[in-house]
Amino acid sequence: MLEEEALSALPLITLTTDFGDQDGFVGAMKGVILSINPEARIVDISHAVPRQDVRAGAMVLRGACPYFPEGTVHVAVIDPGVGSSRAAVVVETALAFYVLPDNGLITLIDQITPVRHVYAIEQAGLCLPDVSRTFHGRDIFAPVAAHLSRGLPPNQVGPPMQSFAELDVPAAVVDDHRVEGHVLYVDVFGNCITNIGPEQVNFGAFDWRWRSGDREVAGLKTSYAEATWGEALMIQSSNGCLELAVNGGNAAEMFGLKVGDLLVLYR
Amino acid sequence: MLEEEALSALPLITLTTDFGDQDGFVGAMKGVILSINPEARIVDISHAVPRQDVRAGAMVLRGACPYFPEGTVHVAVIDPGVGSSRAAVVVETALAFYVLPDNGLITLIDQITPVRHVYAIEQAGLCLPDVSRTFHGRDIFAPVAAHLSRGLPPNQVGPPMQSFAELDVPAAVVDDHRVEGHVLYVDVFGNCITNIGPEQVNFGAFDWRWRSGDREVAGLKTSYAEATWGEALMIQSSNGCLELAVNGGNAAEMFGLKVGDLLVLYR
Amino acid sequence: MLEEEALSALPLITLTTDFGDQDGFVGAMKGVILSINPEARIVDISHAVPRQDVRAGAMVLRGACPYFPEGTVHVAVIDPGVGSSRAAVVVETALAFYVLPDNGLITLIDQITPVRHVYAIEQAGLCLPDVSRTFHGRDIFAPVAAHLSRGLPPNQVGPPMQSFAELDVPAAVVDDHRVEGHVLYVDVFGNCITNIGPEQVNFGAFDWRWRSGDREVAGLKTSYAEATWGEALMIQSSNGCLELAVNGGNAAEMFGLKVGDLLVLYR
Repeated sequence: MLEEEALSALPLITLTTDFGDQDGFVGAMKGVILSINPEARIVDISHAVPRQDVRAGAMVLRGACPYFPEGTVHVAVIDPGVGSSRAAVVVETALAFYVLPDNGLITLIDQITPVRHVYAIEQAGLCLPDVSRTFHGRDIFAPVAAHLSRGLPPNQVGPPMQSFAELDVPAAVVDDHRVEGHVLYVDVFGNCITNIGPEQVNFGAFDWRWRSGDREVAGLKTSYAEATWGEALMIQSSNGCLELAVNGGNAAEMFGLKVGDLLVLYR
Repeated sequence: MLEEEALSALPLITLTTDFGDQDGFVGAMKGVILSINPEARIVDISHAVPRQDVRAGAMVLRGACPYFPEGTVHVAVIDPGVGSSRAAVVVETALAFYVLPDNGLITLIDQITPVRHVYAIEQAGLCLPDVSRTFHGRDIFAPVAAHLSRGLPPNQVGPPMQSFAELDVPAAVVDDHRVEGHVLYVDVFGNCITNIGPEQVNFGAFDWRWRSGDREVAGLKTSYAEATWGEALMIQSSNGCLELAVNGGNAAEMFGLKVGDLLVLYR
Repeated sequence: MLEEEALSALPLITLTTDFGDQDGFVGAMKGVILSINPEARIVDISHAVPRQDVRAGAMVLRGACPYFPEGTVHVAVIDPGVGSSRAAVVVETALAFYVLPDNGLITLIDQITPVRHVYAIEQAGLCLPDVSRTFHGRDIFAPVAAHLSRGLPPNQVGPPMQSFAELDVPAAVVDDHRVEGHVLYVDVFGNCITNIGPEQVNFGAFDWRWRSGDREVAGLKTSYAEATWGEALMIQSSNGCLELAVNGGNAAEMFGLKVGDLLVLYR
């Protein structure tokens, strides 16, 4: 009884895409959702994921989705293979549902709340009557999410799948005097977020340094403002991992770093 | 009884503007709406319509508004003539209400769900007390939309108008061996959407080709991914018309195409 | 009784940040809010405030917040000092609550609806369990706003403060033949909004002129469209102050004006 009320109070759907904000593509998705479930509450996570960058999309989902209430339906459409043979799926974790193409977008979510079930979306009756070749966000992902938000059990969308696509995410390697990590994400401020986390380094007693050319960054700051204006620094990022930043500046530009680059710490 | 419930469950208002997302102009409109109708549910369609580009605004409305539930109130403010003598109007179709300047923004909606009534907004009591010269989105369109979403009959906003402004939208011309169409819209990916639709060509047996310099694009792809990376292709766009695209690239840039350009197909 | 109902009908929270729309930072804040208050209704004002520009953030708040219903909770995070010793505060005016860093963001709101109380946020139990060093928007401001929207009295967040940070906002100076004002804001269209208001000039009988090099702008237009295409003009801005604009163009670029620049009128 209580649960039923809770559900009806919060049929929550989030949207993450690379559609940009100009063309009204996201607006069409919202119209489809509200036509199927007028009670749905839609929250935008990002529509500015770099175009067709599945890896960046996976980082955005990992940074935002875990903060939403249990039972939220997360739609993600970064989909270079739209119209090809890649599957459209519903993924169920202990906390939430994800409606997305099976192209690795779920990888980083799976690392923090493991995937329980994956269902291929094959029930055509849940999609729009005419599925276009180019806009599955509107024609497949949005309507399926709306049905889930009304309580449709996820196993009704189609048959279970035994496996799902995963991105190859490098793990940081550590020994006593050296940590080899990678840049996993560059945010809009140019901060470089790495895969070096609490399993690799002790953030409470951080005595590592990083060097680029003749510039060296040593130790850990506890706020951007602790560095001087324009100074590079290392800090624990809001996702718990090591971040290379510049107070008031752009670390990716200053050091020519991009996603996938190696980052080696010494002590 | 049922209808009343449905209405109260969904006083839905969409917003489409060229205001951008920096200045909080759209935020002010939302504040005005919620002050008049606290129950209103506001959905952004786009605030990045190219500045003062009424034609692009008409395409965005056509691409998104038809997917919203019946009775939705759509506000659109792309308004180069703000403060001039152009009328502010409420347009009623069989499906929805549109609150916008009378400058042709309604043209493409009218082609799919014909305009039934147009009312000039003249009831000053429905607007903010001090109507500014520069921001009718906040002072006129937002409050009128809020009143409509509370059930105000549209004929209460002012007198009916016998005609309304329409854009001059070119029609594609076809004979056995040649189709002359135009680029109607270039989306954020550089895809060129044309006015060549199912009335002009048979998408099920598409044997047309298009040439630009020494490059030729022949036949129809069923997904972007069916072309090789960087290859140009033709595809049926999500609005049903012919689209010229580049897999992983930007067709408008590659071919120097812009809105209004002629596009001729041969076979 | 009535009031209680009104409150429960509209637990409204607005968000204003410089986080941009790419990374999902704002999405994480929304997830936190909805996890604490599933009934909260969240409205974006702007996430494109120029990075770390507290002055621009203050103008955006002043332009949008006054249009929201009484009791709205406004969150603003333009926060160059995140993680430093600057306080995080709840500000109460006669109309609304503001949850923001104590860095001057509230200055222009204070000029129109004076600040009544300021409370330092010190109740750790209202924040997320692990407050990061870099993302107080998610870990402090969002959860505190969610608690306020559920009815938490603002004095429960921490001790009252006797003063708060204010920006140094220049006042326009006027005599019979000369007005010295400043550019306070440049909007996304390049319109230059000044601090010259109805206290300094009579907008009903405006006989002032402004000169830049050999170009002169004289008198007041009542709409952008009243100037010829590409012509500079003065107009009363939507916030009531004098605005320098160019019909269909960008005044800041045409005249090389930026925030803080002096602007002198003659007659």
